[in-house]
Amino acid sequence: MSKIGNISFIAIDWGTSNLRVWGMDQQGNVVSTIDNGKGMSSLMPCEFEPYLMNLIENWLNEEEGAPFPIIICGMAGAKNGWKEAAYLEVPCPPINQDKIIHVKTKNKRISVSIVPGIMQISPPDVMRGEETQIAGYFSKNPNFDGVICLPGTHTKWVHLSAGEIVSFRTFMTGEIFLSLSEHSILKNSVDSENFDQTSFLEAFEDIYSSPALLSSKLFQIRALDLLEKVAAKSLKSKLSGYLVGAELAGAKNYWLGQKIVIIGNDDLSILYKKALEKLGLDATIENTKEVTLNGLRKVYFGGNNL
Amino acid sequence: MSKIGNISFIAIDWGTSNLRVWGMDQQGNVVSTIDNGKGMSSLMPCEFEPYLMNLIENWLNEEEGAPFPIIICGMAGAKNGWKEAAYLEVPCPPINQDKIIHVKTKNKRISVSIVPGIMQISPPDVMRGEETQIAGYFSKNPNFDGVICLPGTHTKWVHLSAGEIVSFRTFMTGEIFLSLSEHSILKNSVDSENFDQTSFLEAFEDIYSSPALLSSKLFQIRALDLLEKVAAKSLKSKLSGYLVGAELAGAKNYWLGQKIVIIGNDDLSILYKKALEKLGLDATIENTKEVTLNGLRKVYFGGNNL
Repeated sequence: MSKIGNISFIAIDWGTSNLRVWGMDQQGNVVSTIDNGKGMSSLMPCEFEPYLMNLIENWLNEEEGAPFPIIICGMAGAKNGWKEAAYLEVPCPPINQDKIIHVKTKNKRISVSIVPGIMQISPPDVMRGEETQIAGYFSKNPNFDGVICLPGTHTKWVHLSAGEIVSFRTFMTGEIFLSLSEHSILKNSVDSENFDQTSFLEAFEDIYSSPALLSSKLFQIRALDLLEKVAAKSLKSKLSGYLVGAELAGAKNYWLGQKIVIIGNDDLSILYKKALEKLGLDATIENTKEVTLNGLRKVYFGGNNL
Repeated sequence: MSKIGNISFIAIDWGTSNLRVWGMDQQGNVVSTIDNGKGMSSLMPCEFEPYLMNLIENWLNEEEGAPFPIIICGMAGAKNGWKEAAYLEVPCPPINQDKIIHVKTKNKRISVSIVPGIMQISPPDVMRGEETQIAGYFSKNPNFDGVICLPGTHTKWVHLSAGEIVSFRTFMTGEIFLSLSEHSILKNSVDSENFDQTSFLEAFEDIYSSPALLSSKLFQIRALDLLEKVAAKSLKSKLSGYLVGAELAGAKNYWLGQKIVIIGNDDLSILYKKALEKLGLDATIENTKEVTLNGLRKVYFGGNNL
């Protein structure tokens, strides 16, 4: 089967609000990228296939041959996504090749697989997408034993041992930050494009020792604006510092005495690394895109229990 | 001066999103009520006077005489309200008659006064409106020494002694509840008009002992919906329980060993009372409207340092 630009398979990270599509060659190198597509929350189940086909039409050809492999991780596998890929339950490897689901498509030129998410019964928790990032990290660090922190909208702390996810815990840190920044009395007080690491770290240390005061410290942001006209840049950084500080106090039994790897975007990962340094911890940062691609490559190239 | 329905003065609670106007007779009884008016956040400073005049037009008459007294508490005295009433600073009585500001109006038939809010420098905090409720409570309980909790969008815990506000602390509990209920992944999971006190109290006790886990427990609400299809009524009650539980853990040095009075709407006050009972505390509930009216009555009838 010949393809434009020598694309052999397509790797996709289909999140709630973002879609990233990579055309990959036979060696697993990225040949083409589409990263401004619609997230899962904007699509009905029946819309995924035509939407994707329209995006990748130029990558396919009309020749006969084996269907074109497409490997997807993320929220496309949720109940209201393209097709539900039932959760695996911890303890388990991040990806089990036997549990990857196949999606029946109208177009026979494609062969679509979705990686299942992971669930935990007690305490109740779920992930979709992060398991592929973790599998990608494992693919380069097969003997890793420790904790991976994946900061973001729903920050995950994941305990890994002997190639398995042992347990994990999600904190709504990023989403609380967004909700309060955009839909609360703090909106005007934190309206800034800039960030001040010093204010972040001060707020982090302040709340870390008294996390029960979180919702009070958050109101203090408003009071500091009214009474002392503190700059929005500093107040936005404080909001972030309070939320991350409360999270790290809550996640203590995850990071205490552990090797820590942070998987996330650059800015946020650096903030978490700086915050962890304040607690005397050294963390390694991995790039989300790279580990996601490594996870999807492993699915394509095979290998059970990634 | 004759007035329709024998109204001698007007008492107003002008909050951010609500306006309540009471026509009062010479004995301080409520004769007429308007409670569906626009809050301060919907009005420009220049719009307050014509908006109010339009509402109360029928209560006034065209005869000559002393201008009609209007006493206002709440956000109408904020910087971007009708006219700024500069904060008093703790420790101070809830209302100081000498600091009540007079608003110059175009219409000479009215004489408008606004009660100032209260500020605290360290930790930084502010209130507007609650000081009048506290003054109203004091007017009937002049020797009260203890703590008043005013649950709501921005719940306040206020330490009172010797007729003064000694210190206070605001928790954004109500606003976080609203932001997450309406603008987060929890939205569908907590979409219910009903409430389940048992779920509330279970969540309250659960978080009270580990308040640092707040943002993780909040995500568990979503996981419980996905994994166990727990009813929205129960999950909404849990959301409330987690937030109130974290607040009460943070407010411990306010309520510990104190006499506690709750001033708030009925439903929320009862929840706080039940939660405090779980901590072995007995609280008295006062109705917001009654204490607000008592505070505004005291301003009208006089008496310094209420």
